Amino acid sequence: MSYAPTPQTTPTRYRERARYDRATVHRILDEALICHLGYTRGGRPIVLPTTHARVDETLYLHGSTGSGPVLAAGPDGLPVCVTATLVDGLVLARSALHHSMAYRSVVAIGCARLVDTEDEKRLGLDALLNHVAAGRAADVRPPNRRELAATAVLALDLVEVSASVRDGGPNDEPEDLALPHWAGVVPLRVVAGPAEPVADLDPAIATPPYLASYRRPH
Amino acid sequence: MSYAPTPQTTPTRYRERARYDRATVHRILDEALICHLGYTRGGRPIVLPTTHARVDETLYLHGSTGSGPVLAAGPDGLPVCVTATLVDGLVLARSALHHSMAYRSVVAIGCARLVDTEDEKRLGLDALLNHVAAGRAADVRPPNRRELAATAVLALDLVEVSASVRDGGPNDEPEDLALPHWAGVVPLRVVAGPAEPVADLDPAIATPPYLASYRRPH
Repeated sequence: MSYAPTPQTTPTRYRERARYDRATVHRILDEALICHLGYTRGGRPIVLPTTHARVDETLYLHGSTGSGPVLAAGPDGLPVCVTATLVDGLVLARSALHHSMAYRSVVAIGCARLVDTEDEKRLGLDALLNHVAAGRAADVRPPNRRELAATAVLALDLVEVSASVRDGGPNDEPEDLALPHWAGVVPLRVVAGPAEPVADLDPAIATPPYLASYRRPH
Repeated sequence: MSYAPTPQTTPTRYRERARYDRATVHRILDEALICHLGYTRGGRPIVLPTTHARVDETLYLHGSTGSGPVLAAGPDGLPVCVTATLVDGLVLARSALHHSMAYRSVVAIGCARLVDTEDEKRLGLDALLNHVAAGRAADVRPPNRRELAATAVLALDLVEVSASVRDGGPNDEPEDLALPHWAGVVPLRVVAGPAEPVADLDPAIATPPYLASYRRPH
């Protein structure tokens, strides 16, 4: 099952990197800790980092009732572009212009809606917590009515979506292969340090397993 | 010396996180390996990951002559929002809605211009290589005329710019402090693995020092 390509999700360059299968898109969205949310204000683009969580074919984005994108979202929703990017490494070629990155990214386009029922808001907020650390939503004090009212959740249905994947080494020109420059890949990854409890934490509360050896899914 | 706040760079929420001093902005831009470039096409937002490099108060962005933002940039330039984000950790609170991220981000707004002289194009491309790995531009085959012509560089003057910095631990409500949930920070960082040479690399070419112990500045 794949997302149908559209003119908006068909790249003008590097078409061989495009992916539309749901498994690839889902893996990237689930692994990426944050995304960048693009919208327009007065016709100008705005891009803000935020957290996201995927529930089946819906992407939830966290806001607050006073934040820019939430204020900009009217009853018809907010046209957005949500982009999540994982950088897997540096790709170093013998020639300047064949340098690249090893990366995986997803671009999701559409009209985000403000979640307007308390049930779906709780569902989205739980998903956002579990996206950051699987199991966390069951190990916190849940939002109360007042907090829920002060929090906005945006939802974007995954319909117009594409991934872009660049892996492997550099693609140097044949005539550059004998040049005396190092070429290859420097792999990059995100690692977690030991969890640091707040100073006033009850010493009887151990670091939960989902934080003690924290890593992103996959 | 600071950037002057404008309505566009004054957040509607979390104003205490806003920073306008150049040193903070420069450090974040220099440390962030990639950025997310937002622009509009047909009035709709588009957000793409790309590499950037700062030279004094100019941000260079890499394109190709056939890429979306380059095609969209007319003689008057392209209104853009460039956002670079560093995620420093997870901030886990006792209550769901006090969860946060430790992060540093920069938002730069303005009209990007297509670099139109060969000299500045070379300057921008060298900066982009050195941004990825300091010293790399002097250790590659430089672009030839044909490659230069096929490559576009966008330049954005750093004028309307702000940073947002969130550090420290969670800010729980006083009545939540005795709850039996772990609270604190899980620090995150990007680490490089050993550089992996291409299979056909001349074995006499050693891994250059700037890649052997690769890390982002700061």
